[in-house]
Amino acid sequence: MADKGLLIVVSGPSGVGKGTVLAEILKDENIFYSVSATTRNPREGEVDGVNYHFLTKEKFEELIADNGMLEYATYCDNYYGTPRKAVEDKLAEGKDVILEIEVQGAMNVKKSFPEAMMVFILPPSVSELRRRLNKRGTETEEVVNKRVAEAVGEIKKAENYDYVMINGDLDEAVETLKSIIIAEKQTIKRAGKIIGEVLENA
Amino acid sequence: MADKGLLIVVSGPSGVGKGTVLAEILKDENIFYSVSATTRNPREGEVDGVNYHFLTKEKFEELIADNGMLEYATYCDNYYGTPRKAVEDKLAEGKDVILEIEVQGAMNVKKSFPEAMMVFILPPSVSELRRRLNKRGTETEEVVNKRVAEAVGEIKKAENYDYVMINGDLDEAVETLKSIIIAEKQTIKRAGKIIGEVLENA
Repeated sequence: MADKGLLIVVSGPSGVGKGTVLAEILKDENIFYSVSATTRNPREGEVDGVNYHFLTKEKFEELIADNGMLEYATYCDNYYGTPRKAVEDKLAEGKDVILEIEVQGAMNVKKSFPEAMMVFILPPSVSELRRRLNKRGTETEEVVNKRVAEAVGEIKKAENYDYVMINGDLDEAVETLKSIIIAEKQTIKRAGKIIGEVLENA
Repeated sequence: MADKGLLIVVSGPSGVGKGTVLAEILKDENIFYSVSATTRNPREGEVDGVNYHFLTKEKFEELIADNGMLEYATYCDNYYGTPRKAVEDKLAEGKDVILEIEVQGAMNVKKSFPEAMMVFILPPSVSELRRRLNKRGTETEEVVNKRVAEAVGEIKKAENYDYVMINGDLDEAVETLKSIIIAEKQTIKRAGKIIGEVLENA
């Protein structure tokens, strides 16, 4: 039977480039991206099951009641959360699963799933993060200021993660995250059992 | 100033292919291989400073007295050890340093250098290790039996290492060890200080 996969929690402030890094990581077919669930309405172009699982409030609350959410939160009167079943099924198949979630949700996952590996992606500096947010050109200065302030608050919580890494150069960041996923599986706490397996055939 | 390099201790039983894996890793010019010192006589073809630093007994004992050895041991009436200065100089330059040493020496390094990262390379199985030792064709069955028995003893101590990995396929083992070196530097205990550096420029 295949070993259980690794649950990989990735956080980082808006504008740090998590999506771009993860798009490269997800080219590996043994890594599964956990799609969040929400009760908000789909925006134009959003596809159910790709961007989010769009659920009714009743269905979402039923899942909460059945312990069907690994973590959830409310934001602007809508629920957002991580459905437990898809995650556990993929892990049982031996696939690694990536959860891209914000800091509070990540801490909640760690509580209900202590064997999760937590990675925080940092910008090279706060001023560089501001530059990236401005470059998008889609947001007013006020919104950018708010995002930067939120980012500083999140970055301060990065010390609760297992790994921190900077997304300065994309290729380097992708290599680093790939390396973390490979290496974490060889840590003595996760791979110690192979010692016995090697000796069994003595 | 460059960050301090990582001290990488690699152990594994005779025949596991440590040398072949490390030869690939050492193509990276930022990784330095620590050459051991010994008081035994050079064998034909051995070069001072490459295979070993060949020292007199007096010089070796002087280094021990001056705390100039990170670890040392005696074997067949000769000293073997790791000169401290070259290791510390390279680490201070920001280079990573690899020590390829047996289990007891590795444990001694960990005591005097707790920030060392310890990696144990395992064979896929003990029978495969025996096959590899036989394949060399240079040793009698008696010697192979002795090596296998020693290997089993060493493998049992692998649980004291930070990482364990199997050398089954060479390319895979090289990628795994490279990944471990990259990832270890991003663990929160080693990289946590970058959080403050990123925030400094808020």
